Order: sequence, then structure tokens, then C-alpha cells
Amino acid sequence: MTAVILGATGYTGMVLMRILADHPEIDSIVPVSHSSAGTPVTDVDPGLGSAIAAKLVTTGGRLVAIDDAAPDAADVVFSALPHGASADIAGPLAGRVPIIDLSADFRLADPSLYQTVYGAPHPHPDLLARSVYGLTEWYREDVRTADVIANPGCYPTATLLPLLPFVDVIRFPVIVNALSGISGAGRKETRDLLFNERSENMNAYNPGRAHRHVPEIEQALRIPPGAPQTASVVFTPHLVPVKQGMIVTTVAELSQPLSQQEAADRLATVYADEPFVRLSPRAVPQSRDVRSTNRCDIAVKVLESDSRLMLFSAIDNLYKGAAGQAVQNMNVRLGIPEATGLRIHGEF
Amino acid sequence: MTAVILGATGYTGMVLMRILADHPEIDSIVPVSHSSAGTPVTDVDPGLGSAIAAKLVTTGGRLVAIDDAAPDAADVVFSALPHGASADIAGPLAGRVPIIDLSADFRLADPSLYQTVYGAPHPHPDLLARSVYGLTEWYREDVRTADVIANPGCYPTATLLPLLPFVDVIRFPVIVNALSGISGAGRKETRDLLFNERSENMNAYNPGRAHRHVPEIEQALRIPPGAPQTASVVFTPHLVPVKQGMIVTTVAELSQPLSQQEAADRLATVYADEPFVRLSPRAVPQSRDVRSTNRCDIAVKVLESDSRLMLFSAIDNLYKGAAGQAVQNMNVRLGIPEATGLRIHGEF
Amino acid sequence: MTAVILGATGYTGMVLMRILADHPEIDSIVPVSHSSAGTPVTDVDPGLGSAIAAKLVTTGGRLVAIDDAAPDAADVVFSALPHGASADIAGPLAGRVPIIDLSADFRLADPSLYQTVYGAPHPHPDLLARSVYGLTEWYREDVRTADVIANPGCYPTATLLPLLPFVDVIRFPVIVNALSGISGAGRKETRDLLFNERSENMNAYNPGRAHRHVPEIEQALRIPPGAPQTASVVFTPHLVPVKQGMIVTTVAELSQPLSQQEAADRLATVYADEPFVRLSPRAVPQSRDVRSTNRCDIAVKVLESDSRLMLFSAIDNLYKGAAGQAVQNMNVRLGIPEATGLRIHGEF
Amino acid sequence: MTAVILGATGYTGMVLMRILADHPEIDSIVPVSHSSAGTPVTDVDPGLGSAIAAKLVTTGGRLVAIDDAAPDAADVVFSALPHGASADIAGPLAGRVPIIDLSADFRLADPSLYQTVYGAPHPHPDLLARSVYGLTEWYREDVRTADVIANPGCYPTATLLPLLPFVDVIRFPVIVNALSGISGAGRKETRDLLFNERSENMNAYNPGRAHRHVPEIEQALRIPPGAPQTASVVFTPHLVPVKQGMIVTTVAELSQPLSQQEAADRLATVYADEPFVRLSPRAVPQSRDVRSTNRCDIAVKVLESDSRLMLFSAIDNLYKGAAGQAVQNMNVRLGIPEATGLRIHGEF
Repeated sequence: MTAVILGATGYTGMVLMRILADHPEIDSIVPVSHSSAGTPVTDVDPGLGSAIAAKLVTTGGRLVAIDDAAPDAADVVFSALPHGASADIAGPLAGRVPIIDLSADFRLADPSLYQTVYGAPHPHPDLLARSVYGLTEWYREDVRTADVIANPGCYPTATLLPLLPFVDVIRFPVIVNALSGISGAGRKETRDLLFNERSENMNAYNPGRAHRHVPEIEQALRIPPGAPQTASVVFTPHLVPVKQGMIVTTVAELSQPLSQQEAADRLATVYADEPFVRLSPRAVPQSRDVRSTNRCDIAVKVLESDSRLMLFSAIDNLYKGAAGQAVQNMNVRLGIPEATGLRIHGEF
Repeated sequence: MTAVILGATGYTGMVLMRILADHPEIDSIVPVSHSSAGTPVTDVDPGLGSAIAAKLVTTGGRLVAIDDAAPDAADVVFSALPHGASADIAGPLAGRVPIIDLSADFRLADPSLYQTVYGAPHPHPDLLARSVYGLTEWYREDVRTADVIANPGCYPTATLLPLLPFVDVIRFPVIVNALSGISGAGRKETRDLLFNERSENMNAYNPGRAHRHVPEIEQALRIPPGAPQTASVVFTPHLVPVKQGMIVTTVAELSQPLSQQEAADRLATVYADEPFVRLSPRAVPQSRDVRSTNRCDIAVKVLESDSRLMLFSAIDNLYKGAAGQAVQNMNVRLGIPEATGLRIHGEF
Repeated sequence: MTAVILGATGYTGMVLMRILADHPEIDSIVPVSHSSAGTPVTDVDPGLGSAIAAKLVTTGGRLVAIDDAAPDAADVVFSALPHGASADIAGPLAGRVPIIDLSADFRLADPSLYQTVYGAPHPHPDLLARSVYGLTEWYREDVRTADVIANPGCYPTATLLPLLPFVDVIRFPVIVNALSGISGAGRKETRDLLFNERSENMNAYNPGRAHRHVPEIEQALRIPPGAPQTASVVFTPHLVPVKQGMIVTTVAELSQPLSQQEAADRLATVYADEPFVRLSPRAVPQSRDVRSTNRCDIAVKVLESDSRLMLFSAIDNLYKGAAGQAVQNMNVRLGIPEATGLRIHGEF
Repeated sequence: MTAVILGATGYTGMVLMRILADHPEIDSIVPVSHSSAGTPVTDVDPGLGSAIAAKLVTTGGRLVAIDDAAPDAADVVFSALPHGASADIAGPLAGRVPIIDLSADFRLADPSLYQTVYGAPHPHPDLLARSVYGLTEWYREDVRTADVIANPGCYPTATLLPLLPFVDVIRFPVIVNALSGISGAGRKETRDLLFNERSENMNAYNPGRAHRHVPEIEQALRIPPGAPQTASVVFTPHLVPVKQGMIVTTVAELSQPLSQQEAADRLATVYADEPFVRLSPRAVPQSRDVRSTNRCDIAVKVLESDSRLMLFSAIDNLYKGAAGQAVQNMNVRLGIPEATGLRIHGEF
């Protein structure tokens, strides 16, 4: 099978390259880059070993321009392009080859909401109805046949996996605080992302309702049975000097009594057969446990005296929060066993 | 003037040594250590320059045992000992020399609450009535004459400074999420604090009501005019791979309308003349801005549509959160201008 | 096939667990720990995903004591125990099951040198003759049949791979400077390895001839054709705040003219068919390129005007420098294709 | 006294701002920035506390353009501009106000060497004769009256301080390996300096004779009595993920016998009265010991059997390696006690 990667030189694209390089069902990778077309892949990304050459035969080991990528002939196209550009370039391919879009372009069902959040009209509103929100554990059946799979954002993935099982027993807004590694901000050459500005530093940013992932989270919270249509979050992301990793701490007021045991059982039941969601052996998960894996570790704590539900989760923002979940979706979409080629063991 | 430091080889003690070494009103420092008595200070702590010798004349440049420290003859005694030990050793000196206790021993007014939280009867309950909670900006007048100044914990300092001005307009519990650098856990030689276990890692711990600083925060919240006697917090600390630094994000439901401007004005008024509390020039403060300073940077954001108040603060956990505030209290107690010897400019 | 790991809870053992968990030819892992016997593996090491249970059937998912490990019945035994203990416990198994020893116990051929360096008589001098130095690329044929494979140290691995091809054209001593991540010091709970002591810090240590890896390097340098029996190094290791990673910079005086092209050709020829040694696409390799891989990236620069040869290498100290090379040796010893189960793609 | 800072928003300029803000003899600072003129200083650099306003009265707390800086009327001008620009802008002021130039523009006495190294003709070759190399401990008397003080580079400072006392007893080339924190590369918004590219990474760069600091080091080595005019270095800098800090490890062949005691005595004698050079209480200095100070810690080890001299040093690259030494030179030049306003106590 052949996979095309649009935007292969950003952090998400680079992680995708690594996963597909080790994926036993992918024989050929076509890495596409506008700025680096023609350059050997291992020059641009020396972390890749020369063994990747075996999967780059069709491009001679090089990055190629989109015009030379023949995406129609591929088995799957990943788009790791920025929003807007992603819909522009990947959109027209829909229906001819499965699209897994890692940008935000197909996540929001309502094009007017997209315009509000992203500041421009949606480039392909007609495709929204043919798109599926690729939070695999919750939309697996839809993913199997979708033309476009909108791969979730990292914050929504880490927030929703522990929270979705509880939408019927809590009051909104829930208070969500997230800590992200710096790679979540992408590979932009800006002052704020320099080593010297981030090392020994941390801060909240875009607090409350200002982050673009808020509408994505809220849309997903309103879908499950029992969820109020006014489900909302007060969401505060924080930047922390780690490269890859994300943890989320959620506090919700319970709308009905729930014991610690009932809460834990609910999670255990919902995720009983999921290879990539685990109740952490720790009281609270640590981000290193899931570093470079497709796993989401979760934990729950009920404060009975305060009628509060506390949820904790950890993912790798670039893996389960981006490239890993994208390959999980690819596996589902192409009929490959879902865990194929995805790492399960994290750091020590 | 002479200052005795009990527990000079922990992180708090080491920062105290640095501040006092540069303090123009302190002529003599007597560093006390049980385990390292007799060893030259610069051997134990090579970060100190040899210039410190001028302030260590009475100990010959060495750490001394408590029996050789003559605390009664000093102008001030700092205790950076662990809780329990601090009250045991520093307690008996009360009344003879001003005590600034950086442990938790004199923070909680109620000895039975101390026993619940710290698992042992309070060693000197009689001294609690002679102790003052040393959150300088709020208890300055009491500090001027106190026998024992209970220096606040780092989490309470960073939580209370932005929150205290608003206790009359919010509902409880408030949701407090804090991120701390690793030095907050002290200099314990435990596996969890090894570089390899903390680097590229982050996690919440002791969530909800489990952290020992929760009763300290709640006690302080119930004191201001207008504060309900049931003021409470859902508090979640997080460990983050920075050495020194702390940021706190607080979300509270408003009990009455409050505009962004009113909230900002309230902070500006309360802290108008404070040298160590600043409304950050940023929308949200960053921990590096206050690294190695006695400053607390704060910011506020009102989510009017959600009737929520959001507060943000940043301190250096070892400085304003421990040794710096201790020297601030010393200055007040000894009649020295309050900002003397305390750093105000942070990292870039 | 079944693999026993002695010392499964140190950093080397933990990385071994991860590699073997993903290794397609290993069906069963028996993790041995003196201190944690009886505890579920994923409690001790939550970074391991629950999928590892399938390979831990014989121990019920738990760590076991040596007495319950049945090493004789295994296909291979890895010892990640400290030196001394390793020879004591693994030594007696030699001849009954292949031993791959990651300690220093079987690296030095001369038992009196061992005693000098490690301060105690060698526990099993009789086994030294049956031991092979497992620098795979140079001793592959010996490894195929050895009773005991002495897995090289991390510093020797990174130093020798670029240097061995040049022993006949340089003068000794050569000047070797190495930078190591903190995990190279093991999982000891000592003050010097705390996050707060290593973060934003770096230093040389044991300089010159003081590090225990010096005799190991020199022994290996004296073996190739053309090497002088007085080959020696002035070796200075440095500790740097990274978790995993090692780079080595070597400067040697040339004893005969050598051009940049000749030097590069020599490396290219020697390592032409090696899957785990690569001439870096960079002028100088970076440690991230090989993070969590079994690869050694190398580069060479000839200073013709100064008649100096400069060599650069990068490895992951825990992977190619320990557990990865151990599995590479296992593959060779057990007749499994050499690259099986070993990562080749590093960080971005 | 008034100090003008040209280039106040780079890392060197930002550290200068901090030192001068706390300097008791400087009453007024005029921070100059081409790109940020008109902006409040604490907006551009929120790490500065509002107390700095007292020293910014003449600019109304703002950065100003060069045309509004009145450098002729100042007591000293610091130039933290890039090379080329520095000579262009600061050069014409020479003779009217003392210039302390932190760029490379006035370090090399030979303008043709400047052209070779920096790729352009020297903008003001006439000023070279009026310039002094500001390695304070070695050129103090010249600094007292110089029109232009060429502040040394960070690598030369850390290399020369331990090495200069030994030039008469060693053979050249000496082998110098240096490790630098990332701030040494400046505040450039380039991919290579992003947090995600430097974290958990390290590498050598520009090895051998390629770094621009090599001619500066060699020029200085040839000046002391007994130094050969062919003194040279094989110099390899390494980038390490710390923000501020530099350590240097030097290996030199002895040209005559020298004992450990003689070497230590030589250093002790040369630097006996220096406030900013210390023989480390450690066997080998650590960079944290000097973090944010103007101190250089040094150590020496003689390998008698190998006839090798090993030297170790640690500085803060932005402090003693740039802004701190610049203020040290200012103190000397303006007749202020040399240690005034300079930090001596480092991190713990």
C-alpha cells in the first residue's frame, strides 16, 4: 500500500514518517513538501535512518512536489498542512482516495462556526457532510467508510477520552486545565518557541474560551446520549518545557451522586476492549508513560464531599494527539488490524 | 546584624544564604546544619562565591551545629527545617529572638487541624497564638511585632495573592490548578525526583483536597471581610520539569456581576503600593519573568458570558514562595526598608 | 523463545523490556528483580503498556526472584546487574544458556586489570577465556558462539566505532571528549542525580585516565592490525542535562598523511554493510538523530594543516550503548536476522 | 552616571539591563533599539520589574532610537549590536565617550584577519590601535584609559583564563573542547534554536579551526612572555540544552615537567587577588556554580604519566562571557571599584 503525506517536514509529518516507516502494511511512502521538494528525505530529517529508502523508491528517496505525488493513485492521503491550505489541497481528492486530515479544516460540522474561529470562509463546506470526526474510540464505525477523516486536535483528544463517558452526570461548564509540550505549537520559527524562551519557563495562554480547540471540544461533548446541548468548557492550556507530552486535569460538578467505584467502573467498561486507552496503574498518569506511544492513560477521582468529579489524562500530543491517531484511523479505514504499527510502550 | 539559618543545606536554606549574602544590613550569617556541621560552606555549596567568607567570620566559614550557633544572641532566626523538627528546635527560642519559620509548623491556627494534616500532635500549641501568618502584603502590621512568623507555603502564596481581593464576589469552591518546578519538592534523594524521572515528564499529584497546603489556603480565604466561612478550594498541583518557578490558574464562579475593568481596577488598587506584586505587562504572566525574584506577577480575566473569574499568578517557589518572602518578613520585623536585599528583576 | 532479564528495574533493564516486548522472535520474558519480586511489572514501570502481559504469561505479569526464573530453561539470559553481582549470579549459568552481560564483569580480558579498576578480585576469572567482547560490528563472528557476551560500555561503543578504523594512521594518546545524558549514571538515588542538581548544569568528571571505561577502550584499541600495543587515550566524560544520548569528539595526531576523502572512504568501506553504523548526513551528528535507536552516527574531519584527525559520533547510551546492542548480540547469537526488533529511526 | 546600551533587546543587552538596573553607580540607562524604539521596556522584556523605571526617566521608560539616545552625553556606551553594525554605529563615538563593544569588531588587531574571518573589510581599521582587548584580569591597566574596549567572546574568556598562565610550559596545538548553553547563539529566530530542536539534543559544531573565536583565542595566546608565536588550538564547541552556561576542557602536552602542586600553585598565584576567578572547591567546576555570576571557576589536573596538562573552567556565557565582563570593564574604566554591581553567588 502507498501513503502520501502532504506537509512531511513539520513535526506532525515527521512523526507520521516514522510510524509509516515501521508500519508492516505500508510499502511505499510519498512525502510531499512545497519548500523542500527535490531534497533527500534524510538530509531534511537526519533522524530517519537510511533504511527508510526501501519505502521511498518511487520518489528516489526525496521529497516531492504535490504535482509529482500522484495522490489519486495512493491508498491513503495524510494531510499535515496548516488549516485552510489543507482543505484547499486535500479537499479535491475526497472520494477518490481516503483523506486523513490532521488540520482543523474538517473538524467543525458548522461552516459558520469555522469562519468565526479560523477567520475565513470554509474552503469546501460541501465536504463537511462527508467528513467524520476521527476520535477513533468513539467514531470507529463511521471512520470505516468516510471520505474524509478529520483527525482530532491534541487538546480535544486528551480532554474528551476521559470526559465523554460522564457527560450525563455532570454540570457544565466543566473546568479543563491542560499542559502541553512545546511541539504542540508546531515548527514555527518564532521567538516565543526558542529554547531560551521556553526552557525553565511555563505559562497559561489563550485562557477561558479563547483557544481554537474549545468549539471542537464542545461540539463533541454535545453528541453522546444524555449530553446537554449547552455543554461547555472553561479551558486553559499551559505551555511547559517538555518536547512531547500532554496532560489534562478536569474538574466537573456532579449533577447526581457518583461513587469513586462507580466512576472507575464506568471508565473500565467503556474502554474495556480499547488497545489505546488505559486506566493508569498510577493514581494520576504521567506524561512520560505515554511518550512516543498511541496510548491515552486516564484516571478518575471523585470528591464525594464536594460533589466533584476529577479526571486526569496523558497523551503524546504528536502521537495519539496527531500522527498516531491518524494511523489508527488509517488502519480502521483500510481494514488493517487497528493496533498495527503503533507503539504501545512509552518511556521509563 | 546577625542571622541564624537552621537547615542551611536544603534548597530553601541555600537560597536564604544567597539573599543574606547580598543583604546590606546583615553582617553575619550563622549557617546551621546537623549533618554537615564543621564543613566549609563553599564545599557543601560551591555556588556560593568565596566573598561570602566576610559574613561567616564567626563560624570560620563553616557550617555549625545548633549547639554552637548561639541563636539567642542573633537578631533573627530562620528555620528551614522540616515540619515537626522546626517547631521542636525553633519553638523554644520564641520571645527571645524573632523566629521566621519556613516550615508548616506555625501556619495553621488550629492545632487539631495540624494533627490531622501532619499526622502528629503539634509540638508547641502554646506558640500558635503568638504566631503570625507571614503573607507580607496582607499581614504586614502583625509581622512587625510577632514572636513567630509562619512563612507561607509556595502554593498558598501564589494562590492567595491574586485571589484574596475577590473573596467577596465569588462562589466556593474555586478551582485552583498549580504548576510547580521540581525544587518545590525539596532536596530529598528519592527516585521520583531524579533527573531521568522528571525530565520530559509532567503530572498532577495529590489532587482535590489531598495536598497539605489546602487547609492553609482555606484558612486564609476565610479571614477577609465578606469571605464566607465555608470558603474552599479544589486544588490540583502539577509537577513540571523546571527547577524554580510556579504558576497558578484559578477559576471561580462570580456571585455578582464584575467587569474586566472592575476586576483589573480592584487588583491595581489593592496592590498599588506593593513593591513585590505586579499586574503583569503580559495577558498572562510567565514564570521566567519572576525567576530568582521576590515578585509575584498576576493577571485577571473575566469571562462575562460564563460569569467566571480567572486569575493567573507566577512566583519563584523558592524565592517569593519561601526564602525571599522570609527575608521580606525579616525586613519588616527588624525595621529595615521592606525591599532591601531582594531581587526584583527576573530572567529574560 | 524465552529471555530472562536479571535486573529488570534499572534503566538498562527497562529499555531491554521495551525492546523485547516488541521483538517478534521473543515469546516470553522473565523479568527478575531482587527488590521488587512479586510486584506487577506495569506497577513498577507504568510506561509499559498492558499489551506486555502476553509475553509475561509464565510470571503472571509479575517480576520474579532469581530462584523462580529458571534461567537454565531460557534461550538467553541478559544480566543488567551491577558489576560483581553480575558475574556472581550470571557466571554460573555460562555454558548452559547464552549469557549477555551488560555489566563490566567480562569486558577486561586480564583479571588483574579488573581488580585494579573495580577494586575486588574477579569473581569468575575462569570464564574470561570463554567471554567475547560484544562490540557487534567488530566481533560478530565470535559472538555467534560465545558462552558469555560482554556487552560494551556506552563510552567505549561510541568512542571505538569511529576510531577503530584509524588505529594504524594515528599517534597515541588520542584526546577523547564525551558528553553523556544523565541516564548513563544509572538509577541511583543520589543527590548528584536529582533533577534540581542536573538541570541547567554541566560538568566534566573523572578526567584523564580516571574513568573505568578507559582500560576497556584501550584494550580494544590494541587489537586491530597495525595498532600499537601502547595505544592510549586521554578521556574526559561530561554530564549534560539530557536523559538519553551520548556524543564523542576525538582528536588524534596523524602519523601519516590522510586526506578528508581518504578518511571518509575508509569509514564508508568499513561500515558499508552495517545496518547500525551510518555516516551522518550532517557535517557533525546530533544526539537526537539516534535517540531511542540502535544506530551510531559518525562523521570525520581531517585538519590537514594541523595533521589532525577529528572524529564525531552519536549514540543513545541506553540503546546502542547498552540494551540495544545487547539485543543485537542476542540476534547474532541466536541466529535471528541481526536488525530484528531494533529501532532505526530516531527523534526529529 | 548614564549608560547607553545599543542593542538592548538581544540576550546580551537584556542581561546588561539587569546588571545596570542593580548597579549603585549608574543612575540612568538609555536603552536603544532600532526595531522596538518607542515601546515600554517592560513590555518588550517583562522580566524587568517596574522598579527599573527609576533609571529610565530620560526615556520615559521606553526604548529609544539611536538618534534620541545622545550617546555623546553619556558616561559610557555599551554596544551589543551584531559585528559590522557595531563598528559602524559605535565606532564614530570613540574618543568622545568610552565604548565597550560586545561584538567581535575590535577584538582582532589585524584588519586583514578580520576580513578573512568575518567576510567583510573592517569598518574602522583606524580604531583598532585605540582598542584594548577587555579580558579584564589580563589587560586591566590598558582598560583604564582605552577609547574602545573590545569585550572578549565567551569561548575565549573561558578558554584563556585557565590557559594563559601555562603558555610557557606547553606544546601547541592544544586541544580545547567547549560546551555552551544555547543563549550563546543569540536570539535569532532560526529553526536550529527552537526548543524542540535543542531539547534532549547535543552536538559539536564548527570543529577544529572553523569557529570565529579561534583567531581571537590564538591572538591572545601569543602575547604573554614565553608564548610561542605559533600558539594554536584545535577547538571544538558543542551545543548543550542549557540556557546559560559554558564549560571548557583543555588538554595540552607539557613541554617540561610540571607537578600537580606546581600547576595549582601557579593558578593560585596568578589569580590570588582576583574577585572573579576562583579555584573551584570541586575537582572539576560545574556550570551551575557560576550561573548568573561574573565568576570563572577553574581547576587543573596534571597527568604526569602522560605529560599532559588538563584545564577546566566554567563561566556564564552571557555574564562573565559577555555582559558581566562588560560591566567589570566599565567599572575599571570609570574608576568604580571593580566588583561593584556584579553578582558573585551562583545557583545551588
